[in-house]
Amino acid sequence: MKEPLHLFKIGGAVLEDYEELEETLAFFSNLPGRKLLVHGGGRRASRMGRQLGIEPRMHEGRRITDAATLEVVVMVYAGLENKRIVSGLQAMGCNAIGLSGADGNAILAEKRPVKDIDYGFVGDVKAVNTESLDALLNAGLTPVYCAITHDGKGQLLNTNADTIAAELAIALAGKYQANLYYCFEKPGVMENVNDPGSVIRYLDPELYAAYREQGAIAEGMIPKLDNAFRALKAGAASVQAGDRKALALGKATQLVWTTEFPE
Amino acid sequence: MKEPLHLFKIGGAVLEDYEELEETLAFFSNLPGRKLLVHGGGRRASRMGRQLGIEPRMHEGRRITDAATLEVVVMVYAGLENKRIVSGLQAMGCNAIGLSGADGNAILAEKRPVKDIDYGFVGDVKAVNTESLDALLNAGLTPVYCAITHDGKGQLLNTNADTIAAELAIALAGKYQANLYYCFEKPGVMENVNDPGSVIRYLDPELYAAYREQGAIAEGMIPKLDNAFRALKAGAASVQAGDRKALALGKATQLVWTTEFPE
Repeated sequence: MKEPLHLFKIGGAVLEDYEELEETLAFFSNLPGRKLLVHGGGRRASRMGRQLGIEPRMHEGRRITDAATLEVVVMVYAGLENKRIVSGLQAMGCNAIGLSGADGNAILAEKRPVKDIDYGFVGDVKAVNTESLDALLNAGLTPVYCAITHDGKGQLLNTNADTIAAELAIALAGKYQANLYYCFEKPGVMENVNDPGSVIRYLDPELYAAYREQGAIAEGMIPKLDNAFRALKAGAASVQAGDRKALALGKATQLVWTTEFPE
Repeated sequence: MKEPLHLFKIGGAVLEDYEELEETLAFFSNLPGRKLLVHGGGRRASRMGRQLGIEPRMHEGRRITDAATLEVVVMVYAGLENKRIVSGLQAMGCNAIGLSGADGNAILAEKRPVKDIDYGFVGDVKAVNTESLDALLNAGLTPVYCAITHDGKGQLLNTNADTIAAELAIALAGKYQANLYYCFEKPGVMENVNDPGSVIRYLDPELYAAYREQGAIAEGMIPKLDNAFRALKAGAASVQAGDRKALALGKATQLVWTTEFPE
């Protein structure tokens, strides 16, 4: 029996809500056993960029990251947001250690090739170095990863936080029973985004395809769920998506890697 | 015989000079055995603050850190500068891990009491947690500390990088032969700041007092040397101050804890 590991990803809207972040960090802090956290910070980065005269440019929900924008996301993700989360967790008695993918060479990425769109300094994950990560976990530390990676040649890269969480879950699934949680501002994946009662309790690839076809699952939820299913297929023990309360109550959306609906 | 540990502090002027930083990181990267790096970033923080409409305020060379300024220094030190150094070292094959004092609860500080001056969110070091630091060193990692600490209650604090380097050297001197290097833009502590030939090769407390009285050693050099002598007195095996080339050639200023001049 592998030891459980909780991988908890918190999204931008949670980071923007001071009280919700406190509650979410308290929930995470109380999770037993080994765990790590992954966070974004895109909204704050967009605001900071604007303050510095850099207008955010997005394509299909992903940030086009020129050199000036890379500086902004490194400052905001690895600096402001990462250290805010770490000091908050430390105050709760959770021995957090805040990192980027460059630290300990944990997450190696390559600059996305230019096709129709030049995303600039955006990195696609190539390898996760579980050795340095494991050393931290073995030391009783709780890694907190921001969405910055590197190419191993001195270039920092901007990488989607949902993707980082999935890649870490996949890399660690060999050693751990990897439980992945996507914590965001909704109670789960919903049939109707305006109806909190419409949370889809179980979602398998077939249902996912059907909801996409209907248009019920759309936009930003698609890359998130693509990542989530990829992690599940590659060995993650469980993947759940929803807000802190739904996750705590076991009422968030649970992804299921089967063609049979388990209810 | 204790194992040697190199503690290397690089100052703001080195960080500002792209080529010099590269060379300095290469020199650090080639130091054999266990090592860690501490860096500042004040000049960049002042520029970034100004870009955001926050005028830097200093008192006796120390930054007055209100809430907005704290955000700037956290962004610049823990984000921009720390990750730039880490990715640079990684490219040289040095397995760096970039941290603040909040990470792994490594450096606990308390907000400086308000006396004549309210320094704001400035922290005086209270304790160094060598356990988490040792775990990193044992894992073959090279810690890179920025000049941010925390109070353990969720508050990040701005702490002078020279002080952090000294405090780390003192805390680690029990276990290691701690060699502390203050790497800055001058070839050493100088009798005449405009004459590169006037480097003081050996400096003991008595000579230091005399140079201060003469006014030859003044301003920013005083808190640096106070820190350096404090570390030496508290058990650091050696302390040297100078630029990369002088340190490499063993021609920087070496602090000596004796009243006898060794030459």
